[in-house]
Amino acid sequence: VPDRLIQALEAAVGERHVLTDAAMTSGYDVDWTGRFRGRSRAVVRPRDLEQVAAVVGACREAGVAVVPQGGNTGLVGGSVPLAGEVVLSLRRLDWLDPVDALACQVTAGAGTSLAALQRHVDASGLAFGVDLGARDSATVGGMAATNAGGLRLLRYGAMRAQVVGVEAVLSDGTVIRHLGGLTKDNTGYDLAGLLCGSEGTLAVITALRLRLVPRYDERVVALLSFSGVRAALDAVAVLRTTLAALEAAELFFEDGLALVCDQLGLRRPFARAYPVYLLVECADRVDPMPLLAAAVEQLAAEDVAVAADGPRRAELWRYREAHTEAINALGPPVKLDVTLPGAALEAFVGEVREVLRTVCPEGRCYLFGHAADGNLHVNVAGAPAEATEVEDVVLNLVASMGGSISAEHGIGTAKRGWLHLNRSKEEIALFATIKRALDPDGILNPNVLLP
Amino acid sequence: VPDRLIQALEAAVGERHVLTDAAMTSGYDVDWTGRFRGRSRAVVRPRDLEQVAAVVGACREAGVAVVPQGGNTGLVGGSVPLAGEVVLSLRRLDWLDPVDALACQVTAGAGTSLAALQRHVDASGLAFGVDLGARDSATVGGMAATNAGGLRLLRYGAMRAQVVGVEAVLSDGTVIRHLGGLTKDNTGYDLAGLLCGSEGTLAVITALRLRLVPRYDERVVALLSFSGVRAALDAVAVLRTTLAALEAAELFFEDGLALVCDQLGLRRPFARAYPVYLLVECADRVDPMPLLAAAVEQLAAEDVAVAADGPRRAELWRYREAHTEAINALGPPVKLDVTLPGAALEAFVGEVREVLRTVCPEGRCYLFGHAADGNLHVNVAGAPAEATEVEDVVLNLVASMGGSISAEHGIGTAKRGWLHLNRSKEEIALFATIKRALDPDGILNPNVLLP
Repeated sequence: VPDRLIQALEAAVGERHVLTDAAMTSGYDVDWTGRFRGRSRAVVRPRDLEQVAAVVGACREAGVAVVPQGGNTGLVGGSVPLAGEVVLSLRRLDWLDPVDALACQVTAGAGTSLAALQRHVDASGLAFGVDLGARDSATVGGMAATNAGGLRLLRYGAMRAQVVGVEAVLSDGTVIRHLGGLTKDNTGYDLAGLLCGSEGTLAVITALRLRLVPRYDERVVALLSFSGVRAALDAVAVLRTTLAALEAAELFFEDGLALVCDQLGLRRPFARAYPVYLLVECADRVDPMPLLAAAVEQLAAEDVAVAADGPRRAELWRYREAHTEAINALGPPVKLDVTLPGAALEAFVGEVREVLRTVCPEGRCYLFGHAADGNLHVNVAGAPAEATEVEDVVLNLVASMGGSISAEHGIGTAKRGWLHLNRSKEEIALFATIKRALDPDGILNPNVLLP
Repeated sequence: VPDRLIQALEAAVGERHVLTDAAMTSGYDVDWTGRFRGRSRAVVRPRDLEQVAAVVGACREAGVAVVPQGGNTGLVGGSVPLAGEVVLSLRRLDWLDPVDALACQVTAGAGTSLAALQRHVDASGLAFGVDLGARDSATVGGMAATNAGGLRLLRYGAMRAQVVGVEAVLSDGTVIRHLGGLTKDNTGYDLAGLLCGSEGTLAVITALRLRLVPRYDERVVALLSFSGVRAALDAVAVLRTTLAALEAAELFFEDGLALVCDQLGLRRPFARAYPVYLLVECADRVDPMPLLAAAVEQLAAEDVAVAADGPRRAELWRYREAHTEAINALGPPVKLDVTLPGAALEAFVGEVREVLRTVCPEGRCYLFGHAADGNLHVNVAGAPAEATEVEDVVLNLVASMGGSISAEHGIGTAKRGWLHLNRSKEEIALFATIKRALDPDGILNPNVLLP
């Protein structure tokens, strides 16, 4: 059967685009964190919708599961093979239609990288509402499948809020397509919304109709320091209600900043250290500096650095964005992405370090995240590779405080065992009902999401 | 069997809340337009979640279908019984939790009217993002089930964009509940989004966690007149890109305005008549008048009336909102709610009257709608009660121009026969697959949405 499958795949996409040699497939077999690794039966690289449909059809016929993969930048093992699945790479579907300036929308192939999309729409004086650090590799299809959030969610929402229409291949090879881009269109179930965040378990997304937002060229970034988490969160609340132009409010801590400066040889932003930092960005048609300056006056910030020109803005952003790189340099970290209710976030920051000490005294815990959404990325460096206990105590603490065990990364392989912390058995049964209905043979990304 | 069902329903909700007498059920058996009318086996009025679950369970056991009904203000026959179904009225589930000011959210029972919700959140200095004319009767559960749009969609989106979490009863009586209100929460399929717009066919919504928006007390309304549709749409495009505070942009025409003034005895807004009118509203923390005035300067408006104080604003709104009342006074109209792509809207306005003349020369066609979304309400007064031909030519024209046959009202009973104009057979088959999975016995609102 396997050989016949390989032949069918080669017939579908051409021999060159069916990779079976371990040297060729290894980049597809392991995730970005290095924690999730398997071995694919084959990596298949279709170039268009028809080829995707043919690949799915061939795999279904052979009874072999398919793992759809975009930029493979996910952090929960959601796009790697575990047990001989076929990896269906969507990266060659990287076409972009001309921007529809009247509708403020664009249609993109699922394999288009976020950076390519951003460049494309920038030329039309528009922008895309979601931005994230992995922009050069992450694909819009993968971002939709995981309902990616990122740096601007407080202003524009997550991927689901950007997706106006979808084209996808169902588990039996059927194609559904609804890319007309009408924003008011109550003609049936919200298939696009259902596929967003379904982590490749219900269909393979091949194209997206995406809404665009105005491109704001007047930007100001400010780095603020605070005596504690509460003061920083209070500041975010003030900024949100007074600055319509607020686009990002990123939280990090002294230990993370120190690590970043140390690892990357950066100059520290302020003469002295503070417990908590907040990086905010405003963007507007007119210079947001006066309004931002007035708002900052009202805050209990200890120290402030403001940047208006591009290079200086990038310097301030670097303190936040380099966290991932700096932490990774300590070895593969355990990465957990969680949401806390606003009222519980401060307590969580205190308690998470304590509970980690009980199970992993050698681990170093770095926190950073998106303050306005209660979204923290918990990174534990120096934990053992099999760090189930670390995950367990953190996720249980989150759930006990009314939080979500996955803010924006999804469940993937990593968190399947903890889904019950957030979802009742009735909800999980309903997920399984939907999964069975759309993928009765269980061939679409069978290792993720459902327990 | 029927008698045993009535007994079971009475046991579930109490005798007083099971209506079987035609005099008592008649208000539930006919829709607001008067076009869709049936006879229910019983109208059941549960007061809470447990009673709803018991009612659904009893009906399923008896093999009798259930029609969930909120305020019964829908316009597509989506909430009336056709063939002896049980009407499940949610209106008694009209509780409201205290506003969560930190999260800017509130949890509401499905039977809460929009007006009650608005009053409740107003006291907290917040507002609800969706507003519509039927606010005194429409319930939040019905609005979610139909993904209602309304007057402020251009600023805040439709109901689906407001629903952060949902509680619902599935067809087998199972309860699902996810009302924690975390805005970043990627833990499984988007059940809330799936139920929004599902028209009661997948589950009975019993409670909603709703996002709130800032309450803007500084409001300005302007009525603008134009020489034609193109000029009005160009004006909307300018206003959208220059006024972040723009909240509504409503389009109507001279014939509608004349009818409104005539029927309601209103004074005309301008000394002379113009072909097209645009009603715009801006709302902000600070007086939006200067920005609106500057923007209006750029427009090709023929005449302008501006109102800042409440009573004058209401007067201008009356010209738009009284369309429904004035048209209804001519007899039950055929009401069709459609979206056109921006580029096709002007042509549609011209052509729709022509195609109507071919099938219904005695009909009078009134158009009004939400200009920014391409959403037009086509009202045909004086058409015969069985107006299939009228619907057919209008919906076919819409589809031929790339539009949607249902912008915000949903498919209901009214448009089932035309769903294929917007949705491929593969999509409709997928809808049916989802429906069968969640409601294998077909007891939830079986007369709507699916052909």
